[in-house]
Amino acid sequence: MSASTDRPHDQLRQVQIECGYLESNPASVLYRSGKTIVLCTASIERGVPPWMEGKGKGWVTAEYNMLPGSTSPRKRRDRSGKVDGRTTEIQRLIGRSLRAIIDLDALGERMITVDCDVLQADGGTRTASITGGFIALSLAVAQLAKQPASELPTLDPSAVLPQSVAAISVGVIQDDVVLDLDYQLDSAADVDMNVVMTGKGRFIEIQGTGEEATFDDAQLAKMLSLAKKGIAELTALQSEAISSAS
Amino acid sequence: MSASTDRPHDQLRQVQIECGYLESNPASVLYRSGKTIVLCTASIERGVPPWMEGKGKGWVTAEYNMLPGSTSPRKRRDRSGKVDGRTTEIQRLIGRSLRAIIDLDALGERMITVDCDVLQADGGTRTASITGGFIALSLAVAQLAKQPASELPTLDPSAVLPQSVAAISVGVIQDDVVLDLDYQLDSAADVDMNVVMTGKGRFIEIQGTGEEATFDDAQLAKMLSLAKKGIAELTALQSEAISSAS
Amino acid sequence: MSASTDRPHDQLRQVQIECGYLESNPASVLYRSGKTIVLCTASIERGVPPWMEGKGKGWVTAEYNMLPGSTSPRKRRDRSGKVDGRTTEIQRLIGRSLRAIIDLDALGERMITVDCDVLQADGGTRTASITGGFIALSLAVAQLAKQPASELPTLDPSAVLPQSVAAISVGVIQDDVVLDLDYQLDSAADVDMNVVMTGKGRFIEIQGTGEEATFDDAQLAKMLSLAKKGIAELTALQSEAISSAS
Amino acid sequence: MSASTDRPHDQLRQVQIECGYLESNPASVLYRSGKTIVLCTASIERGVPPWMEGKGKGWVTAEYNMLPGSTSPRKRRDRSGKVDGRTTEIQRLIGRSLRAIIDLDALGERMITVDCDVLQADGGTRTASITGGFIALSLAVAQLAKQPASELPTLDPSAVLPQSVAAISVGVIQDDVVLDLDYQLDSAADVDMNVVMTGKGRFIEIQGTGEEATFDDAQLAKMLSLAKKGIAELTALQSEAISSAS
Amino acid sequence: MSASTDRPHDQLRQVQIECGYLESNPASVLYRSGKTIVLCTASIERGVPPWMEGKGKGWVTAEYNMLPGSTSPRKRRDRSGKVDGRTTEIQRLIGRSLRAIIDLDALGERMITVDCDVLQADGGTRTASITGGFIALSLAVAQLAKQPASELPTLDPSAVLPQSVAAISVGVIQDDVVLDLDYQLDSAADVDMNVVMTGKGRFIEIQGTGEEATFDDAQLAKMLSLAKKGIAELTALQSEAISSAS
Amino acid sequence: MSASTDRPHDQLRQVQIECGYLESNPASVLYRSGKTIVLCTASIERGVPPWMEGKGKGWVTAEYNMLPGSTSPRKRRDRSGKVDGRTTEIQRLIGRSLRAIIDLDALGERMITVDCDVLQADGGTRTASITGGFIALSLAVAQLAKQPASELPTLDPSAVLPQSVAAISVGVIQDDVVLDLDYQLDSAADVDMNVVMTGKGRFIEIQGTGEEATFDDAQLAKMLSLAKKGIAELTALQSEAISSAS
Repeated sequence: MSASTDRPHDQLRQVQIECGYLESNPASVLYRSGKTIVLCTASIERGVPPWMEGKGKGWVTAEYNMLPGSTSPRKRRDRSGKVDGRTTEIQRLIGRSLRAIIDLDALGERMITVDCDVLQADGGTRTASITGGFIALSLAVAQLAKQPASELPTLDPSAVLPQSVAAISVGVIQDDVVLDLDYQLDSAADVDMNVVMTGKGRFIEIQGTGEEATFDDAQLAKMLSLAKKGIAELTALQSEAISSAS
Repeated sequence: MSASTDRPHDQLRQVQIECGYLESNPASVLYRSGKTIVLCTASIERGVPPWMEGKGKGWVTAEYNMLPGSTSPRKRRDRSGKVDGRTTEIQRLIGRSLRAIIDLDALGERMITVDCDVLQADGGTRTASITGGFIALSLAVAQLAKQPASELPTLDPSAVLPQSVAAISVGVIQDDVVLDLDYQLDSAADVDMNVVMTGKGRFIEIQGTGEEATFDDAQLAKMLSLAKKGIAELTALQSEAISSAS
Repeated sequence: MSASTDRPHDQLRQVQIECGYLESNPASVLYRSGKTIVLCTASIERGVPPWMEGKGKGWVTAEYNMLPGSTSPRKRRDRSGKVDGRTTEIQRLIGRSLRAIIDLDALGERMITVDCDVLQADGGTRTASITGGFIALSLAVAQLAKQPASELPTLDPSAVLPQSVAAISVGVIQDDVVLDLDYQLDSAADVDMNVVMTGKGRFIEIQGTGEEATFDDAQLAKMLSLAKKGIAELTALQSEAISSAS
Repeated sequence: MSASTDRPHDQLRQVQIECGYLESNPASVLYRSGKTIVLCTASIERGVPPWMEGKGKGWVTAEYNMLPGSTSPRKRRDRSGKVDGRTTEIQRLIGRSLRAIIDLDALGERMITVDCDVLQADGGTRTASITGGFIALSLAVAQLAKQPASELPTLDPSAVLPQSVAAISVGVIQDDVVLDLDYQLDSAADVDMNVVMTGKGRFIEIQGTGEEATFDDAQLAKMLSLAKKGIAELTALQSEAISSAS
Repeated sequence: MSASTDRPHDQLRQVQIECGYLESNPASVLYRSGKTIVLCTASIERGVPPWMEGKGKGWVTAEYNMLPGSTSPRKRRDRSGKVDGRTTEIQRLIGRSLRAIIDLDALGERMITVDCDVLQADGGTRTASITGGFIALSLAVAQLAKQPASELPTLDPSAVLPQSVAAISVGVIQDDVVLDLDYQLDSAADVDMNVVMTGKGRFIEIQGTGEEATFDDAQLAKMLSLAKKGIAELTALQSEAISSAS
Repeated sequence: MSASTDRPHDQLRQVQIECGYLESNPASVLYRSGKTIVLCTASIERGVPPWMEGKGKGWVTAEYNMLPGSTSPRKRRDRSGKVDGRTTEIQRLIGRSLRAIIDLDALGERMITVDCDVLQADGGTRTASITGGFIALSLAVAQLAKQPASELPTLDPSAVLPQSVAAISVGVIQDDVVLDLDYQLDSAADVDMNVVMTGKGRFIEIQGTGEEATFDDAQLAKMLSLAKKGIAELTALQSEAISSAS
């Protein structure tokens, strides 16, 4: 039996969080979930995109990318000028999830870009990006609070980020509901669902898909329940990492 | 009070289905849901994409596009070589939804492309594309059954399409759960959910999003219940339209 | 013998014009010439392109596109970032033809984009786009006259559009000169000529091509004569449709 | 009075033809018409495009480009991946004109690409490209006749190119009809017409355009008459240059 | 005085090499030179590019990329479809350097792609990529030797890679010659030279540039001498890391 | 023995310089080195790129392109939107070389673009572009000095261009060091080095590459010595051509 199926179906993979991974940017996080490794960095820019200007509000956006060496066989680099559909969907999801919990008014006219670059992919890269991306975002907000800008009002981190966000996948494999799908489990799943929730247990996003299968109410209920359990655990790990970093 | 808010919150907009809209292609459907108008055409090609060859299976894919004149102000035409993220997400969703209910083995080595071109957009274009796209797909399969191909096995429509698929949106507007969001309702919604189900009431896809809001279990339950009601009605309308066309 | 060859060689196909086809835009026209169907919509924007600014003049431009389902086999969607040469030529022709009869000074600093989207293609889509596009343009100008803009002078429709424009194809098929080529006739033609004229009978554009053939003075004279006859009939139909719509 | 207006309105600019301009390719021609300079080179490839394979026929295509330094102010280089509409139209016209007089069956499965690179632009670059491009094509065919290919039948130049092709512009300037428009004349013209004819005086292509003007039958007749005169003179010059080169 | 200028001008920055950084690919190396961090991964594919087929030889290519978070301010992601000129130059240099020391005949018909993704940039990323890329390449070749392929001859690592390659920068800062420029030194340099050499001390590539300055023979000689010293030290570190990994 | 190898290994090919080649632009130079022909034109624009504005400095940039007919077989035209790596490297090199000897402060807020279009390629096109490009640049500066601009300070040519620049290639062929590689020599060379120097004999750029070979100190010294000799000769020819043109 493979390593990945040794894990009980209601348990998360082991998570490791390294804050300040890059010396040049305190808001950089190396996030590991099992073999999946994502480098999340939050970069702050003064000013916002043209369509946001003059509203006194900030903006948060995210980009997602898998490094060519993150998979075997090697993934071709996105240099055709066309970002593939999967990448586009994922980075839009990360951006929406982060914007759901930040108070853009309290942020002021600043833009934060959260880059999620996957160094090694073993399933769950989008949920790892959301969970790790939130940590990078928190560290960036904390950094902003320490660097008062003359033209912009002083920033209160707890007003900017009153809530946290984390995400996890759940799935149905041969009628069994499983938490936190690695690549091997994901390949075997009939139904795949990503759940994004606040630290206080409210839904931000539910994306459940049966590519060549369907699911019923009971399976939906079980998946949501397991996802809640996982997100609660991730919320605790995020909180601990952010505290240690400050 | 505007026309759109006159409709009870648990009622669908009026649906009109015109099969065989284009004389040159029987598998063409003009699908109207209120003011939203989508032209769905299914085109059949012998053979499948390179990565599918030699498996004896067919393939179904979908493309979605909004005509420039479908919105006011005019929507710029997608000619930059970059399909925007929203379009990519929608056409991937339509394709997955149609593939969830077709038996690709029974289809044989044929490829069907379902084009969903939005002539007028008033909210709900992605769900209209799925619901209308299924009708176009059914008409294409019926057409295939009438045109036996010498090298390919004869095709049994009920084996190829043992189920139907339809989709509808639901949302939360000021704590009220509403069915079938037109543009005005969609703009006012705190939570927006698209639900794709089979005609037999099983889930294919759930996509629920709170862009700057969150939702709880009770709201989720109400949304799913209303979506089921709407999809049951659409399933009946689809069935009737397909019967009349044959 | 097919339907298309039943028509006498000096007769137009049947034309149907539906003004205000889209509820959201009065300047929308569904133009049918035989089986060819083009949806023409004129969209108005305040302001002009950068290189036109500050001259007190307006601008009219056109875009042309064939929907994938408009032909059999399906036409691939233009998403490569490269508009194909034929499309480019056609939309430049439509734009030039419309600008030849509009008084851009009288229009003031407004921009009108005429979109010509071909829903079904059976030959003559470019001339249908010009003829239908003029109707959409007229409806847009009429609409502007009803909506006085505070910063721009009131607009006199007859000053803006003192003339009309229409277009038709003619060709040589086995030494016979034929009016209004549908797809079948066009495929058989040795010479293909598109003629654009004002309602008063002056030439705006003549494009005559013998891809692998040549033509002489006598044939040229016959083609031009037949084109004039056809354009006079189209001018009457345009006038009638515009009157009915107002 | 400028040099260009000194020339009588029914006279061509001075033409200079230098065959074999590039030592590495005998089928290279430096073609000058007044200040307009076009370098035309014909390159031969074994084989044809995929869609032509197996028919035993050849193919001729053309590309047109203006060098950045050919105009003042400098013309930006086409490196965006989008060939501009004018360039596309011109190179399609050159290709059609050359294919109208070549016998592709007699050419056999070979492809000839005629490149027309404008070194200095002073109006009439497209007609210079056709006239000079024909010379390069003739030189390439002559070269092929001297180099028998083992797998392909021996080629008879007079069977491959039984006719010649040349092109010239005419225009209407303040009711005066003028032959061979240089940049200054072209800017002043109300109507601009390009005429492509065989050496034997039959039309291949007529493209007459009044961008913001129109023209009548009498003007059309005068323009065509003047074009015929010019093309007869160019045909003689082509013939002489080709003879001298061989 | 800043940390970077504390280092003597003839000393390398501290180098750290972590072989097998990614669990899924033994030929992955995390290479650190001071604050510069590059992840080098070598991916093996059976077969070679089309233009290399049938020669019995292999191919090595390299790609270079800076992650957006590797610099401050954030570097925009290369998604326009145009790889910028600097990136193109660098990845061509890496590829040439690796191909200079590998015996492509001994490699057989295999292709190795070396990806150099910069996680943190503090100057010298191209030379770090070459030095680290060689280690990844060596590990990939070692891996190939352990996995005999049925259709391909067994591979002898010392025949495939008889030599090593490493690279370093040198520069002139206010008439002082300096080894291994970090970002701060590079910004101050009048002349910047990258030197690529074999482990045995022969030149593979010299690229010396004075953007707004020039240099003379004496300065050139000093730069080359210092580069040789640095490369000898890097060669020893490479050798040690590769030995430890096997 | 071929023509190219008849030339002694320490001699330049024959150089021909035609200033003012295009009547419309005095700063145009047809530069020939043996069979290599490059058309260099310098175009002046008022103003500089956005990132240079307000500094009172000018800018010089270069573009390089090979015409399709310049090589046999024909080189495909760069129209994909991706400038190939070699082209990018070359035009960056030309730009850097010209900027190394111009005083951008003395130029004032003007931009000069030097276009180097290769009409015929027989090796050494990048060095011919630098050597010819400098002449075009000098002619443009001389032209500027004659055309005082009201808003910009009068320009002193000898202050703007206090030095000259020229370039040449050298190589190692079977242990023999050779000056000025034509295509045949370049193909045979084990090591290829391009050297860019001022007229006063200081280095601007050294680019030495052994694609599948290496070189030692003695070979490097010989190559540099031969390059210096060649550049001294080219400097004299440049000076003479510029004097004759004024």
